[in-house]
Amino acid sequence: MKALVLERKDELALRDIAIEEPLGSHDVRIAIRRVGVCGSDVHYYVHGGIGPFIVKEPMVLGHEASGVVIETGAAVTSLSVGDRVCMEPGIPDPCSRATRLGKYNLDPSVRFWATPPVHGVLRPTVVHPADFTFRLPDSVSYAAGAMVEPLAVGVHAATKAQISPGALAVVIGAGTIGMVTVLAALAAGCSRVIVSDVLEPKLELAAGLGPVVPVNVRNESLAEIVQRETGGWGADVIFEASGNDQAAANVFECLCPGGTVVFIGMPGAPIAYDILEAQIKEARVEHVFRYAHVYPRTVDMLASGTISIDPLITDLYDFRESIAAFDFARSAPASAVKVQIELSDSA
Amino acid sequence: MKALVLERKDELALRDIAIEEPLGSHDVRIAIRRVGVCGSDVHYYVHGGIGPFIVKEPMVLGHEASGVVIETGAAVTSLSVGDRVCMEPGIPDPCSRATRLGKYNLDPSVRFWATPPVHGVLRPTVVHPADFTFRLPDSVSYAAGAMVEPLAVGVHAATKAQISPGALAVVIGAGTIGMVTVLAALAAGCSRVIVSDVLEPKLELAAGLGPVVPVNVRNESLAEIVQRETGGWGADVIFEASGNDQAAANVFECLCPGGTVVFIGMPGAPIAYDILEAQIKEARVEHVFRYAHVYPRTVDMLASGTISIDPLITDLYDFRESIAAFDFARSAPASAVKVQIELSDSA
Amino acid sequence: MKALVLERKDELALRDIAIEEPLGSHDVRIAIRRVGVCGSDVHYYVHGGIGPFIVKEPMVLGHEASGVVIETGAAVTSLSVGDRVCMEPGIPDPCSRATRLGKYNLDPSVRFWATPPVHGVLRPTVVHPADFTFRLPDSVSYAAGAMVEPLAVGVHAATKAQISPGALAVVIGAGTIGMVTVLAALAAGCSRVIVSDVLEPKLELAAGLGPVVPVNVRNESLAEIVQRETGGWGADVIFEASGNDQAAANVFECLCPGGTVVFIGMPGAPIAYDILEAQIKEARVEHVFRYAHVYPRTVDMLASGTISIDPLITDLYDFRESIAAFDFARSAPASAVKVQIELSDSA
Amino acid sequence: MKALVLERKDELALRDIAIEEPLGSHDVRIAIRRVGVCGSDVHYYVHGGIGPFIVKEPMVLGHEASGVVIETGAAVTSLSVGDRVCMEPGIPDPCSRATRLGKYNLDPSVRFWATPPVHGVLRPTVVHPADFTFRLPDSVSYAAGAMVEPLAVGVHAATKAQISPGALAVVIGAGTIGMVTVLAALAAGCSRVIVSDVLEPKLELAAGLGPVVPVNVRNESLAEIVQRETGGWGADVIFEASGNDQAAANVFECLCPGGTVVFIGMPGAPIAYDILEAQIKEARVEHVFRYAHVYPRTVDMLASGTISIDPLITDLYDFRESIAAFDFARSAPASAVKVQIELSDSA
Repeated sequence: MKALVLERKDELALRDIAIEEPLGSHDVRIAIRRVGVCGSDVHYYVHGGIGPFIVKEPMVLGHEASGVVIETGAAVTSLSVGDRVCMEPGIPDPCSRATRLGKYNLDPSVRFWATPPVHGVLRPTVVHPADFTFRLPDSVSYAAGAMVEPLAVGVHAATKAQISPGALAVVIGAGTIGMVTVLAALAAGCSRVIVSDVLEPKLELAAGLGPVVPVNVRNESLAEIVQRETGGWGADVIFEASGNDQAAANVFECLCPGGTVVFIGMPGAPIAYDILEAQIKEARVEHVFRYAHVYPRTVDMLASGTISIDPLITDLYDFRESIAAFDFARSAPASAVKVQIELSDSA
Repeated sequence: MKALVLERKDELALRDIAIEEPLGSHDVRIAIRRVGVCGSDVHYYVHGGIGPFIVKEPMVLGHEASGVVIETGAAVTSLSVGDRVCMEPGIPDPCSRATRLGKYNLDPSVRFWATPPVHGVLRPTVVHPADFTFRLPDSVSYAAGAMVEPLAVGVHAATKAQISPGALAVVIGAGTIGMVTVLAALAAGCSRVIVSDVLEPKLELAAGLGPVVPVNVRNESLAEIVQRETGGWGADVIFEASGNDQAAANVFECLCPGGTVVFIGMPGAPIAYDILEAQIKEARVEHVFRYAHVYPRTVDMLASGTISIDPLITDLYDFRESIAAFDFARSAPASAVKVQIELSDSA
Repeated sequence: MKALVLERKDELALRDIAIEEPLGSHDVRIAIRRVGVCGSDVHYYVHGGIGPFIVKEPMVLGHEASGVVIETGAAVTSLSVGDRVCMEPGIPDPCSRATRLGKYNLDPSVRFWATPPVHGVLRPTVVHPADFTFRLPDSVSYAAGAMVEPLAVGVHAATKAQISPGALAVVIGAGTIGMVTVLAALAAGCSRVIVSDVLEPKLELAAGLGPVVPVNVRNESLAEIVQRETGGWGADVIFEASGNDQAAANVFECLCPGGTVVFIGMPGAPIAYDILEAQIKEARVEHVFRYAHVYPRTVDMLASGTISIDPLITDLYDFRESIAAFDFARSAPASAVKVQIELSDSA
Repeated sequence: MKALVLERKDELALRDIAIEEPLGSHDVRIAIRRVGVCGSDVHYYVHGGIGPFIVKEPMVLGHEASGVVIETGAAVTSLSVGDRVCMEPGIPDPCSRATRLGKYNLDPSVRFWATPPVHGVLRPTVVHPADFTFRLPDSVSYAAGAMVEPLAVGVHAATKAQISPGALAVVIGAGTIGMVTVLAALAAGCSRVIVSDVLEPKLELAAGLGPVVPVNVRNESLAEIVQRETGGWGADVIFEASGNDQAAANVFECLCPGGTVVFIGMPGAPIAYDILEAQIKEARVEHVFRYAHVYPRTVDMLASGTISIDPLITDLYDFRESIAAFDFARSAPASAVKVQIELSDSA
């Protein structure tokens, strides 16, 4: 089948590749319809690896995907041919201790699309376990379906935060993950979200997502604005979604006594962490890794309109223009949030 | 001052009454602007008492109120003359064990407006502790401000429920408390709410509040609809807001494994409770009593538009027509949710 | 193999029965060493069924067991031949939604030893999944190992209760489940436990388990003693372990504001449940069904001596005397807590 | 009255000092009987200040105290003359937002004994609010009563950790706070505690406190021992009680997936914090600051024998030898845990 293959660092090809995928009894075969380009895909393209994961063999990219079921395994009862679906890209070992505890995202043996040596899904079809494939109601488009993966990160973070209805949250960083966290925090009960970044176009887009206070930390002090907006009390929840080490180091400054910090962003090195500042507020700090058990709830929020994801899909390419899509994403224009690639029937 | 006085069961008078209220150093004096008629007010009117609380002396009614600060005590720093405000009607003993634990709503010595022998606020002014008086931003009207009290019940229930974002909730009962619970559950993260009642006009109004599935249990089976809407899994959260003993007895039927039930409604007698049915689902059951610490968050949701309360304010009377307002509320037309009474400057 | 077979209601036989058990790759074969007689075993003996579970074919009894591994499947890495072990008697469907969420005890398709039509383990050997088989350290005897099953019920209940260290708990009922709950509550942080029953020998045994206040509700008022012991505040946690409908109906009387009730006992019919009494205390009510993920922690507490289970093992029979053991258990002498049956190598 | 006065850095005097303390209606007057020497007392002696708290005027030292009530205010009902008591040394503003939320330890305006400019209690008598004075049962000695303050730190940390019964905890650091945390963790449900330090006498004492595995990190790898003791899974809870920046930086290495870290120790500067390592385990991190609402539960555990505190009281001085007690404590011999000072009637 024809796929978008990362041959090696800096070299992409849209070419035929042989991938044998027999259909297990609990699997479905899916024709891919829409795939989002993730920062990690671009990172593999630019750097040839992420931390310990090095691309040694040609690898198909893409893990944010939606599609349509074209074949079902003998034991599958939850899905039928023709069902429009989105898929979790990581498949854990069902027997691992973490999986059995219900925390399958913490299973170190998880196999994740487009993480070497596992192929991604920028290709016509894929075989996937039915248990990690979720039906999209008619009201959720393929485009929105391919956004479930990044959105799930925000929803998982908002779940861990245990937001009290009406709470005020800060989201540090208005990249894609920051944006989905803003949406998730509002949907999860926040009355308002203060979002900080240095790029004005990102902040403008974020400000349109609901009751959002944008803060450009080039010109303004986040701590001062939080103090002003909370009568000096501090934010109930702070989501660190920038991965910036300075921002991450300063999270407690904006927090209220008894508040919660969620670290979503991944700084490249250990940060400076002020235990005393966290102690005088008895901060609770949660850390999230991908997501677990949140796809159904995420799809439900898209279906009922609790979350409108469309404003984040800023750019669309045809599958035949996949390399151009990646080069565009690689250039990281401030106006772009999510670049998606469309696959048609004849792809 | 002229007040709406419940002289005794079945007898209301709009007349002068002497209420001496010196202003303590931590108090404010408030000119009342809007008061909602609560079911408990009507109950005192019709029955002359609620449980152990018997009206023995003439008592001013009303406890859902907003107004404007006209005088501040010497030690008050959080409020100024001219501030538009809403007020918590219950004042706990600050030294009680429950209050010190942060659970002041469980303090048995709480003094609550319009609960004998404490006067309510259907009168021109009241003196109140600044700590239980909350500023309304410009975007929150006096009408909405007087809805904070009932809405706080729903917000407190939704807080206790610990709703995961995207969860599906059932609200049993579409009276005023059911309606505010629907609003609170949606604001707190539910992707959808199924609401049940027997009165079609209530269900129609509820259906307009957001992604709400109305169920008229005269014609339809709530359990069947929950099964259909959840693929046979059950609802994540069930709010019992009807106080109906049959409805309360059947809550576990609609619940998902590991789900949560919140009892808000107050049945007149013990219900039949099936422990085994709750056990095979390991249900968590929460009980709520009024609210604690939720006014600021509730005001914030009204201010940011996360909750739109106006559809619930169905009927308005001038203070001079207060008795008519109570007689209307007493007749309980199916189309009415909240009846409010407006007090003007010259009242 | 020779097994203790319930032929039908009231008829036990120690006789040969053919049970074919091939060893799967993730299974182990275990020689049984010790089996406790559970109230449910006796119930099947006396009544021929429990609720919907009717004994239609001859069935081997027994599900509280320890033993030694005598064969391991090809894929088993966690256990070796010669390991002394205890076993969870219920095997869930690994693909069910409840199991995947980590709540395998709520999976309705669980297969449980000695629950028709599944054979129990009063027989020389059994094949069991390695994932539900747990190694016993040298310091934990086979006798203690066979107590892990009932003790796990108490530990699961204590886990759900989320006991604050130093809290005071009430355990209603001093049967076997009440006793293990006393042990678990003390191990889980309670400074004291008040235990109620009507049988003096049970209360005497309970009083020896640690800082325990026994209350014979024939002569004394539980509520009064709780008030006295807590300065009028009420108990932090109440474990209902009697299954008595009157006791279950009165749990809120003894509870402190903001306290927790855990329903472990299973009354035969719905109880009268006073929602208002639960509301004025904002009680949290948890329901438990067997246990999940608690065997390793339970074994660890036996191994380190945090829990001493030996006082509960009151009576021992040889496997050849199994029928006598059941007849003794059936007579339910007040002095007996746990009757165990020993299987030797040559059984 | 005669008191132990810190005149300035390095200079103590046992001398008369005038302290006027009128008895408020909610206060009691207490004759001090036993006072523990805390690290912070010694720090003021050696350095003349702690962070922003500088000793500018002569200040009485001591805040870990027990005594006997000798006078009660008019409104006091919970205590009587002759009651043996211990006291919380910090008095919050009852009107602060944190206090009203039940988190009085986070109130920045708290007045704390022996924190400039507030006098401590190494003196014959003190006046204190009855609400922060707790009766000691006969079974709790004055010596144990004066240990409630440091022990409360451990109990608060163990409460925040939400220990599942049977969990395994690591306590880093076997100083006084490490020791009380070991006791609290065991009492709160841990089956075992691994404790690390570099001083052999401390580890030996810790090893005698219960099922404790001592690790001298001069010779052994804590991570390796945790792996060995947990079958490679990691510890459920890690209490960082050393304040050592290297130890604090490495906490996640020993943690299990989904585990909890509690930071009790106070490093002198920000630590290097590896967010990624915390993320792949989805660590929950709690920070504690003193304690709130734990005195009654702590006293109850001492009274019932759930916690035996006596092994930690290693050295005793008479009040007249207070300066010698401080000089001994200042020398920090490895064999000493808690130095106490006894005050007699005639002091």
